[in-house]
This record gives sequence, C-alpha cells and structure tokens, in this order.
Amino acid sequence: MISDLKGTFSQISNNNKRSAIREILKLTQNPEIISFAGGLPAPESFPVDALDSIVSDMLREEGAAVLQYDATEGVSELREVLVKKYRAEGIQCSLDNLIVTTGSQQGLDLVGKVFVNQGDVVICGLPSYLGGIGAFQAYGAKMEGVPMDEQGMSATLLEAKLEELKQHGIKPKFIYVIPDFQNPTGITMPESRRLEIIALAHQYDVLIVEDCPYREVRFEGKPQRLMYQLDQDNHVITLGTFSKIFAPGFRIGWVLGPKDVNEKIVVAKQSADLCTPTFVQKIAVRYMNSGVFEENLQKTIDLYHQRRDVMLEQLEKHMPKEIKWTRPEGGMFLFITLPEHMDALELFHKAIEKKVAFVTGNVFYCDGGGKNTIRLNFSYVNNEKAIAGVERLADIVKAEMLVEA
Amino acid sequence: MISDLKGTFSQISNNNKRSAIREILKLTQNPEIISFAGGLPAPESFPVDALDSIVSDMLREEGAAVLQYDATEGVSELREVLVKKYRAEGIQCSLDNLIVTTGSQQGLDLVGKVFVNQGDVVICGLPSYLGGIGAFQAYGAKMEGVPMDEQGMSATLLEAKLEELKQHGIKPKFIYVIPDFQNPTGITMPESRRLEIIALAHQYDVLIVEDCPYREVRFEGKPQRLMYQLDQDNHVITLGTFSKIFAPGFRIGWVLGPKDVNEKIVVAKQSADLCTPTFVQKIAVRYMNSGVFEENLQKTIDLYHQRRDVMLEQLEKHMPKEIKWTRPEGGMFLFITLPEHMDALELFHKAIEKKVAFVTGNVFYCDGGGKNTIRLNFSYVNNEKAIAGVERLADIVKAEMLVEA
Repeated sequence: MISDLKGTFSQISNNNKRSAIREILKLTQNPEIISFAGGLPAPESFPVDALDSIVSDMLREEGAAVLQYDATEGVSELREVLVKKYRAEGIQCSLDNLIVTTGSQQGLDLVGKVFVNQGDVVICGLPSYLGGIGAFQAYGAKMEGVPMDEQGMSATLLEAKLEELKQHGIKPKFIYVIPDFQNPTGITMPESRRLEIIALAHQYDVLIVEDCPYREVRFEGKPQRLMYQLDQDNHVITLGTFSKIFAPGFRIGWVLGPKDVNEKIVVAKQSADLCTPTFVQKIAVRYMNSGVFEENLQKTIDLYHQRRDVMLEQLEKHMPKEIKWTRPEGGMFLFITLPEHMDALELFHKAIEKKVAFVTGNVFYCDGGGKNTIRLNFSYVNNEKAIAGVERLADIVKAEMLVEA
Repeated sequence: MISDLKGTFSQISNNNKRSAIREILKLTQNPEIISFAGGLPAPESFPVDALDSIVSDMLREEGAAVLQYDATEGVSELREVLVKKYRAEGIQCSLDNLIVTTGSQQGLDLVGKVFVNQGDVVICGLPSYLGGIGAFQAYGAKMEGVPMDEQGMSATLLEAKLEELKQHGIKPKFIYVIPDFQNPTGITMPESRRLEIIALAHQYDVLIVEDCPYREVRFEGKPQRLMYQLDQDNHVITLGTFSKIFAPGFRIGWVLGPKDVNEKIVVAKQSADLCTPTFVQKIAVRYMNSGVFEENLQKTIDLYHQRRDVMLEQLEKHMPKEIKWTRPEGGMFLFITLPEHMDALELFHKAIEKKVAFVTGNVFYCDGGGKNTIRLNFSYVNNEKAIAGVERLADIVKAEMLVEA
C-alpha cells in the first residue's frame, strides 16, 4: 500500500460520513427484533405480478434497445410520461425541465455537486432527511438548521436565519425542504407556509430544493400543490422518485427544475453514471402506461393508511400522556417527542435488549439537537408486529419515566 | 430566477465540461450517415431471448425482494459471482474487495470523488478515455499526460513525468490506465510493461487506477493478467463492467480494490445513489449462473473479431500508404494516425458531408494534442456499412492528400 493512504483521500471523502442510520440498522438485523427503524416500503406494495408480462412484452416488442445505453437525460418516453403527469396537475413544464436520476438520492447528490463548494451554507429543517444532509455535506456544505413547527419549517425562524446570514455577508446556496410527510417528522406544509417560504426565497434571492419522495402517498386531507408550481420565478428545484410508489429496487428518480439548472445537472450526471439503467426506465414507461400504477398506488396508500392507524391507536393506548407524537396524513414515518430530559439513545439500547428498534431522532438534527426524539416507520412492519412492538416500546418508556421520577 | 445563477454554480460544476464526443455524436444522428463515431456495443450481441425466462423465473422465485433497496456494496450474490470469477483466474480477493457500481463510469466518478481535490495531479495516457478524464477533472484534477507507444503508456516517459513532478514536490493522486484494448487506441499492454508501471508506482508511492471495460473481448493473442494481480502490494484499483460483455443498459460495473479504499468508496456511493438497482443486479446473478454468459460472450467476441477484420481489410485496401492505424487484439476501437500536417477536425466536417463519421482523436488528449488522429469504432456497424464507410473515408483522406500535395 502507498505510504500515506489516509492523507491521500480527498476533502470530499473526509467530509463523507458513514450514515448513522446505517450503523443503527446493523444492530437491528436480528430477525427477533421488531424494527420501526428502517425506511423501507412494504414489499407487499410492490407490483410483482404485473411485471412479468410487462418485461416479457417489452423484450419481445423492443428487443435490444432496452439493453443499450440511452440518453443521460433519461429515456425520452419516461420523461414524457412524467411531464404529462405534472401537466395534468396544472404544473407548467416541458421535457427541458425533467431529468431522470438514479433514485432521488442521485438528485440530492447532483444538486450538491452542482451548487456546493467547501464551506457554502445550505439551510435545512431541524430535523431533516439524513441522506440529503449527507449528500450536501460531502461537497463541503455547512448546514444551518431552522426549527420546524406543526406546519413544517418555521417561516419566522427561516427569515431570522436568512437575515442573520445576510448580516454576516453570507448567501446560502439553497433551502432544503421536504414539504409532504417530511422524513423524519411526517409533517406536511400547508400552502400558506409554502408561499411564505417561497416569498422569503425571492426576498433573499435563494433557491429552494424541494424533495418529494412521499407526496403521492397521501391517506387523507387535501393534496398540496408543489412549491415548484406555487413559485412563479424558477426558484424551485423539485426531486421526485418511484421508490415509494412503485419499486425502490428500480432506482428511478427525477429532477423537475429550471432549464438552466438542469443543463448543469445533466453534465454532472454524465460523468456520474452516463445514464440511469435503460432497462428499468423502459419497464417504468410500460408500467405507467399500463394502468396498474394507479391501482397499485391506491393499494399502497390503503395499506400504509391502515398501518399508520394501527400505530396511532397503539401509541394512544400504551404511551404515557407526557409523550407526544405527530399524526402524518401520509408517508411512512411519525415522530415521537419524549420529555426533555430523556435520552433517546439510552432508550434505544434498552429497546434493542427488549427486541424492538427505532431510529433516534438526533441523527436528523444537523445542530446535534433532538436528543429526546424518535422516528418510527410504519410502512414496513405488519399489524401484528406493530401492535407487539409499540407495546414493548411503551413499556420501556414507562420504565424509564419511573426510574427518572 | 435568482439574480446570479451562474455565480451560484459550484467549482465542480464549472470544471464539468459537456463531453466533446456528445457534441460530435449529435452531428452523426442522421440515419444516412455511416457512423464509426459512437462507442456502442452491437445490439446483436445482447442476450434478449435469454432474459425473458430469467426475469420470469426471478419474479416467481424471489418476488418482492428484487424490487426492494439492497446493500450499497451491491447484491451479495452478485459480488460472490464476481469474486469467484476473479479467483478462478488466480486473483486473490474476497467480498471486501468488491463493490458493485452503477456502470464503471460511476467507478471512475467515485474514484475521482474519493481521491481528487481541486488542483491534484492525475496521470493518464496520451490519449485516454474521455469519460475518465472528465470524471477526474470534475473534482479539479490537473491531468498530466504520458505518451503511449505500441505497448501502451511509455514507462520511460512515465518515469520522467513522475520524476519531474517529484522535483516540483508534487505527488500525483494516481495513474489512470486502460491496459487492454485501450479506448481510444485499441493498444494492449504486455505483461512486461504492466510490471514496469507497477514498479514505478511502488517507487514513487502512487496508486494505479486500472480501467478494464474491454478485457474479456479478446479476439486473439494471449490474455494478460490484471495489474491488480501482478501487483503484490495494494497499489491497484481495478474497474470492471458488464457493459461490453452483457448489456450496457443494465449499468452494472464494479470496483475491485484494496479494502481500505473500498470502505471510502462505499460511503461515497451511499450518498451518490444509495445502491445500484437491485432488479438488474439480481438478473445479472441469474444470467451469470445460467451458462448463457460464456456462450453469448463467445458470440460477441466472434462478431467483433469479424468486424475488426473487415475494417482492417478495407483500410489496407483503400487507405493511402502514408496513413497508419493500430491492429487491436480485441475491444471495440482502432486508431488512425494521419500525416502530421493533417487536421482530423477539418476531415470530420468533410466526412459528415459525405455521410461518414468518426471521433477526432484530439478529444482524448488532455494536452490538446492528437490533431491528426481519428478513432474508429468497429463493434456497432455491420459489414456492408463498414465496407462502404471505410471506402468513403479513404476517398476523403485521399482527396485531402491531393489538395495538400
């Protein structure tokens, strides 16, 4: 080996931390553990049966073309399907606005790559999706967190943060938000909050990166318009994905963004992986055009809705009244706030002993806060396990409260 | 739009140039043009028929698991298949040494990401694969080119370059080589040259990145051992891919590297795309285990072998004797050197008028050289077109020589 391998790694590599969740998930591998820790869609929600004939027809009708390289921007039929879908919602966009990515994680990575220099400021919610924070930090982003309330990122505190940064001569590269059923809190921004944040982005001349992996998985309440749609002035870059509404193992996401930004993202994607696999993109086109997409999405929504209800019922039934949690209208996660003095990491180790697992909320706080918070996933575990798991978890919380009382 | 979008893009984005080949390929879209420009495998070489039953069996036997997220390192059965394949060659490696990537382009990108800081020196051949150079330059690499001879990168000139850099206190991050049927020249390094370069890497304490997309596509001559195998001291990181021996549209590549390096690459990959699509990885496992891989590879080799022969025959038959070209023992490309004073770019524009296309060799020279060189791809175009295309090309060259005489 070369003499100083460690010193040979790049700044980016040194910035790039192994995901804290990944380490937590390792501890939850034991099959006896009921895990609310992961962020996995339910395998029952995947359209396994529909795919056999779709792939078979595709190979017969399109042959070798589905196995060849394709455009870096994505397979054009897939981009057309997605643009059509957005237009049906009333969103103005064209093919120039849409690039297919290898999962929306690649969208996050490319946004980081295209905008962030070492030391640049990026604003995110407290808490926020770890994979977003990690992707931006890798390129050297200094994350500045803005606390959330029950309507998402606080506009008042965002304004204060933007003003404070401005006083120091700092202009953030962008504001990172997850407006629908946010990971990890499950909170959705109402339109009024979206508009406030957009107005601040205009006022402070800053871009918004809007990450929407869960948006279509809505159980109840009114669907909210994309910030991309609400904005009238190209301030918003939106990330979408099939991972939660079709199949994560296809790794198909997309960027819906201003043409000038997308041109930069395409060049970055070209050197990142040339193109997203043609084979899965072509399957996705046929799947979207088959009519099975809508039917299967409804099944997924019904399944997660029912699983959320079971989890909420169990929390009501078993948790001490001092414990608070969110009631997401969709998505895959809810967020528990323990009494201030409680340490979720201590609880985690006790929970693992009792064979139940979660992710400690602090990993989503770029400021090191959230020590008394917990993220629970409700999409993956079946009802029977969820019932047993929440009861176990409540027992641990109660025991902890007795100890501390 | 924000006021200074251009100034908001990152250094990486500004480093990241749109591929020159991409622009050339746009000019060759006209179906009347016989194009030797692209780098596409022949669609006839893709195992379309075998895949229908493989996918069908996979969905029936494995169900939802093939649609779920999987490990960042890659699907473990696929890593095992690849490790087994290398071990069968006598290469010492284990699962720790093998990571699946989204095409070997992602391997190049991650190597750049993990090692290169703005201004770091990376050494490459003159000429070298543009996608490698581009991936490294994006992270700020200053490429230093070393001329090639008929055995690949010159060891003498590499030593001179390493010594010169050392005198300036500069240690390159790595030496980038494509030892087998190099893109763009088609040249293969014999074992003696590989050993010389490895010895220099040891002496100057530098890593080697060995890019092997074409290695398995050998028509004749003795298979050469990987530099990874010849090296005894973890100096070599090898990139492999299924793109030229199975299906580029699957975007499956891999890194065979020292464990300490792979640990860094996995972390970088996690924030780049979480994992390569499970669906195509699982298909690849079954394909490799089906026995069709070897059979189809042989068909591919036979096809390209025959296409290379046709191209060489036509060049012999039609090209003036002042023109030189390489005679690759495998791969997809050969390289033409025109008389010194001829400009391949001028020729290109005349060629497009006459409905034949190629890539000018200069795009592969990081030092701006190679103005009198041409890359021809022989894998994609059928014999009939190749015969007509080379004749057209020779006519243009002859006309040019007459003009200049």
